[in-house]
Amino acid sequence: MTASKLRVVIIGGVAAGPKTASKIVRLCPRAEVTVVEKGEFLSYAGCGLPYYISGVVKEQKELMCSPIGVVRDPAYFQKVKNVTVLNRTEALEIDRAAKRVRVRELATGKESRLPYDRLVLATGATPVRPPIPGADLDGVYSLHGVEDAEGIRAALARRRALDVVVIGGGLIGVEVTEALVERGCRVTVVEMLPQILPMLDWEMAHQVRKHMESHGVRVLTHAQVTAIKAGTDGGGRVGRVCTTRGDFSADMAIMAVGVRPNAALAKAAGIEIGETGAIRVDEHMRTSDPAVFAVGDCAECRDLVTGKPVYVPLGSTANKQGRVAAMNVCGVDSVFPGVLGSSVCKVFDFTAARTGLSFEQAVEARFDPVTVLAPAPDRAHFMPTAKLLMLKLIADRSSRRLLGVQAVGPGDAAKRVDVAAMAVTAGLTVDDVAGADLCYAPPYSAAMDNIITAANVMRNKLDGFFEGVTPEQLKRKMDAGDEFFLLDVRTPQEVAGIALPGAVNIPLGALRGRTAEVPRDKEIITFCKISLRGYEAALILNAAGFRSVKVLDGGIVMWPYETLGN
Amino acid sequence: MTASKLRVVIIGGVAAGPKTASKIVRLCPRAEVTVVEKGEFLSYAGCGLPYYISGVVKEQKELMCSPIGVVRDPAYFQKVKNVTVLNRTEALEIDRAAKRVRVRELATGKESRLPYDRLVLATGATPVRPPIPGADLDGVYSLHGVEDAEGIRAALARRRALDVVVIGGGLIGVEVTEALVERGCRVTVVEMLPQILPMLDWEMAHQVRKHMESHGVRVLTHAQVTAIKAGTDGGGRVGRVCTTRGDFSADMAIMAVGVRPNAALAKAAGIEIGETGAIRVDEHMRTSDPAVFAVGDCAECRDLVTGKPVYVPLGSTANKQGRVAAMNVCGVDSVFPGVLGSSVCKVFDFTAARTGLSFEQAVEARFDPVTVLAPAPDRAHFMPTAKLLMLKLIADRSSRRLLGVQAVGPGDAAKRVDVAAMAVTAGLTVDDVAGADLCYAPPYSAAMDNIITAANVMRNKLDGFFEGVTPEQLKRKMDAGDEFFLLDVRTPQEVAGIALPGAVNIPLGALRGRTAEVPRDKEIITFCKISLRGYEAALILNAAGFRSVKVLDGGIVMWPYETLGN
Repeated sequence: MTASKLRVVIIGGVAAGPKTASKIVRLCPRAEVTVVEKGEFLSYAGCGLPYYISGVVKEQKELMCSPIGVVRDPAYFQKVKNVTVLNRTEALEIDRAAKRVRVRELATGKESRLPYDRLVLATGATPVRPPIPGADLDGVYSLHGVEDAEGIRAALARRRALDVVVIGGGLIGVEVTEALVERGCRVTVVEMLPQILPMLDWEMAHQVRKHMESHGVRVLTHAQVTAIKAGTDGGGRVGRVCTTRGDFSADMAIMAVGVRPNAALAKAAGIEIGETGAIRVDEHMRTSDPAVFAVGDCAECRDLVTGKPVYVPLGSTANKQGRVAAMNVCGVDSVFPGVLGSSVCKVFDFTAARTGLSFEQAVEARFDPVTVLAPAPDRAHFMPTAKLLMLKLIADRSSRRLLGVQAVGPGDAAKRVDVAAMAVTAGLTVDDVAGADLCYAPPYSAAMDNIITAANVMRNKLDGFFEGVTPEQLKRKMDAGDEFFLLDVRTPQEVAGIALPGAVNIPLGALRGRTAEVPRDKEIITFCKISLRGYEAALILNAAGFRSVKVLDGGIVMWPYETLGN
Repeated sequence: MTASKLRVVIIGGVAAGPKTASKIVRLCPRAEVTVVEKGEFLSYAGCGLPYYISGVVKEQKELMCSPIGVVRDPAYFQKVKNVTVLNRTEALEIDRAAKRVRVRELATGKESRLPYDRLVLATGATPVRPPIPGADLDGVYSLHGVEDAEGIRAALARRRALDVVVIGGGLIGVEVTEALVERGCRVTVVEMLPQILPMLDWEMAHQVRKHMESHGVRVLTHAQVTAIKAGTDGGGRVGRVCTTRGDFSADMAIMAVGVRPNAALAKAAGIEIGETGAIRVDEHMRTSDPAVFAVGDCAECRDLVTGKPVYVPLGSTANKQGRVAAMNVCGVDSVFPGVLGSSVCKVFDFTAARTGLSFEQAVEARFDPVTVLAPAPDRAHFMPTAKLLMLKLIADRSSRRLLGVQAVGPGDAAKRVDVAAMAVTAGLTVDDVAGADLCYAPPYSAAMDNIITAANVMRNKLDGFFEGVTPEQLKRKMDAGDEFFLLDVRTPQEVAGIALPGAVNIPLGALRGRTAEVPRDKEIITFCKISLRGYEAALILNAAGFRSVKVLDGGIVMWPYETLGN
C-alpha cells in the first residue's frame, strides 16, 4: 500500500511513539522504523505510577510489560515488532530540508544523522517546575517518570508516616495524594486556584475535597507555595514548605502543577506551534510540514464541542493518535476527530469523572448553558451495593444538546460519564439521552438510570415545569439577607440529622394539608435530600396557587456550604 | 396546560401504571387519576425478586418502598401524589363508546363503572405456564409476583439444600438460579433451545453456561420438560421433574419460560393488538383508540435499529413509557423512540449484557453483519482489579454502522454495553466508536478501552487488514478433517496450560526466524490467548509472502469447544 523501504523516524519511546511504530510495521511490514528515546525505559504506563507508589502495583516491571509479562525493551521491539529502538539517545535537531534527525547516544556522546521519509514527533511533555526557592532540594519530586516513582518509593521505604506536601491539586496531585495516604503519609495539598480538580465545576470538586478531608488530607486552596526549605539536620533535604496560607513541615514535597508540551525541537525546526503551546496538527496528526507528524502529549487537540484547539495530554488520546498517525504515514487515510476532555480519577472511595464542557467552558464558548445537579443511588435503591452518585449535567438551552456531564461520589461515576461521552460525541440532545435504552438490572442500575433521570430533570427545567435555584444562588440570597421561605419537605427524622439554616420543615406527605403555613407573599425555595420530593412540593404549591416557587438543585446532599447538625 | 378535571383511569398498579399516574398529576395537578390494581401490592420492584430470594434484599417491604423507606400503599398515593388507588379491584371491561371501565372489588364483589377522558393500560404480563402435567403441584412456582417469592422463601426456610429444577434458561431463569445456589440449593436448568440466554449469540451464552457449571449448576439445553411428578410422601408436592434428557429429583420447580402480554381486556374492547401479541401503540404510546394509551409489559415496542415491532418487557422501558404516555395524556407532545433490547444480568461472578442486534437478528434484518470477538482485561492489565471481559461486536459491512454489542465475563460488561447502547442509538459507525474520548485511568479501563480496541479490530477487518475465522468456522474445518495449519503463537508455558488440538506452537517472538516451519501450500490459521499476537503473527506471515493467513476470532480464551489440558 506504500512504497517499500519507507523510512520512518519516531522521536519518543514512552506511549504514543511505540504505538505509532507498532502500527506502522503492521501496515507496512517493509517500513524501516526507528524509535529514538532519550530515557532508558520504553512503553511504560506513566498513568500507573501512583499505583506503583501506593503498592497496588508491586513491581516496576509490571508497568513496562506487555499484558503477557514480556518486558518491552529494545530487543523485544526488534524481535517481535521489527522496530529499531535507540534508547538513551537524544534527538538534537531536525533538518527538514534534508529530512534528517541529528541524534546523540548519551552513553558515548556519539552523534549521527537518521534520514527519514516520514518523521513522527512523540516527544511528550515535561512537568512544570515553578521557580520556587528550594525546589531543587533532595526530597522534592515530580511524578512523571519511573525515576520519580522510584525516588518516592525509596523515601517511603526508609521511613514511615512521612509528612508530605503535594503542590498542585489537579488529577496527578490528587492521585498521588491517595497513594501517599495509603502508604501512611500525612498529606497537605496546596492548590493555587480556588478549587482542586479544575476539570470539574467547583461544587463537584468541593464534594471530592470533602471526601479527601474525611480521609485526613489537609486541602488548601487559594494558596501558593513561596519557598521550600531544608530540614534542620543539614542533609540538604526538604524540611518545610512555606505557603501563603502557612508553613508546613514536610519530609517530602511533590510537584504536580501540570505539564508542558515538549515542542522545542519542533519549534527550532520551524514547525508551527499552536496557541496552546503544543505542536499544531491537523486531523490527520500532520504538522505544518507534511512529512512530519506529532502525536501524544506534545500535540495539540481539537475540542469536539467547541472546535477550538485545546491541550489535554492523556494516555488514551496518545494511543488513538498513534494509530491515526501510523495509518496516514502509511498512506491510509485516517482521522482523529478530537477530544471531549474526558477524564476520571479514583480518590479513595470516590470516583470523579467528567466529559464535554464544564459550565464555565460552556459559558466561554457562548452557549446558553442550563445545569442540573442530580444525586441518587447508582443502582436499585433496595440493593445493599447501591452507592450515592452525584451527577451534574450541562445542556444548551435552545438546542437542548448535551454539552457535558460530571459525576462524583462512591457510586459508579465512570460508567455514566462514558455513556455521556458517547452522547456528546454524537451531538445528542437531553431528550435523546432520556430515551436511551440502557441496560437495567438491580445490581447495575435503577430502572431509570441516573443519567436518564438527570436528563429528565433537565427536560423538566428546559420545558419550564419547574425552576431551579443553584446552591450558589441560594447562598447569595442567604448571605444578602433576602426575604424568602426555605421549605424542607423531608421527614422530621431526616431533619434531625442534617438541616439547612433557616429552613422550615413540612414533610411532603403533609404539605397538601398545611399549605396555610406557607407564606403567599414570599419567594419559596423547596428542597429535600436530593430534591425529588422538593420538586413534587413545588408542583403541589404551584397547583395551590403559589407563585415564585423554586427548587434547590441537588438537595441537601449536594449543598456545598455549612449545614446544621450532623 | 389542559382542561381542568381531566379524568384518567389507569389499569395496573405495579410499575408503568403508578409511574404514569405520578407524572400526570405532576403535569396536571387537577387531573383526577384513578389506578385500578387487581393485586394487593403496588409499585413493587419485580426485578428485585431474585435478590429477595437470595437474601441480598432482606425484607419484602424494601421492594415496595420509596427510596426513603415509605411504603407505597393507597394512602401514600392519595396523600403524597393525589392519586386514587383501588387495589384488589379487577378491571372487567372497557366500554370505549361510553368511555367507562367496569371494575369489581374483589373483596366484596361490588361492581362499578369508572368514567374516563383518557385511559391508560398498564396491565402487565403473565408468566407463560406450559401445559406440563403436574404443573399445578405444590412446590411449582413462577417468579413474577411477590407471592411467588414468598412461597419460594418459605420453602427455603423449611429445608436447606433443596434440589430445584428451573424450567427456562432466559434472564429470569438464570437470575433465580443464582439466587437459589446462593441459598444452598442444587439447581438444574432445563432449556428447550440449544442455548441459555437467547438474548446473546450462542458462543457468548456458552461462556455464561460454563461459568454457571463452574458454580455447580447443571445446565441442560435442547431439553424439554415432559412432566412434573409428585413426591412419594403423598403430600401432593413436587418430587421429580421428567425431561427429554432425563428425570431429576426436585423439591421445587420454577417456571421461567417467559411472559405473555396481558392484552385480553384491550382485545375484547376492539383495540388493535400487534403481531407480537402485545398492544400496538404509536410512538406517543397511544393505541388504535386515541383516548387509550398502553405502557409497560402489555405494550409492543419498536426496535430502534430495524424499525420492526418487538416485545421486550422490561422495567426500564416501562418507566420511560409511563413518562411519555403521561405527557401525551396531558397534551404535552412526547415521544418514546423505541428499544435496543438492552439487557444485563448478574450470574455469580459474571455479568452478561447486550444491546442492539445479535448476529442472528442482524442477518434476519438483512444487514451484512461482520463480527468481532475481543477478550481483554477490563482495566489496565497491571492493576490487580483487572478482570477478563469478552466482547462481541456486530457491525454492518458496507455502512460500518455498529449494530450491536454483547459482553460477558467477570469484567465490567455493563459499562461497555451502555456505552455501546448510546452509540447504536445515535447510529454511530465503528470508526466513530474507535475515536470516542472515553475516560481513562488505570482503575477503570485500559488506555484503549475494550470497546475502542474491539472497534479497531472491526475496522481492521472491514478494511481488509486481516481475515478472521470464527470459532464455528474453525470447528467445522477440524470436524471435516480439512487441511490447514493451526499456528499457536503463545509462549510454551501458556501452551502447557491449555491448547487447541492439532495446533503447532511457534511463539510470536520467534516467528520471524522460523517461517520455514510454516507450510506455504496450506491455509494458515493463527491464534494466541486473545488473538492480538495471532493478528501480529498473521501480518508477519503475510509480509513473508504467505497467502491465505487467517486469525482465530477471540483466541483460545473464547474458544467454545474442547481444549487440551487444564
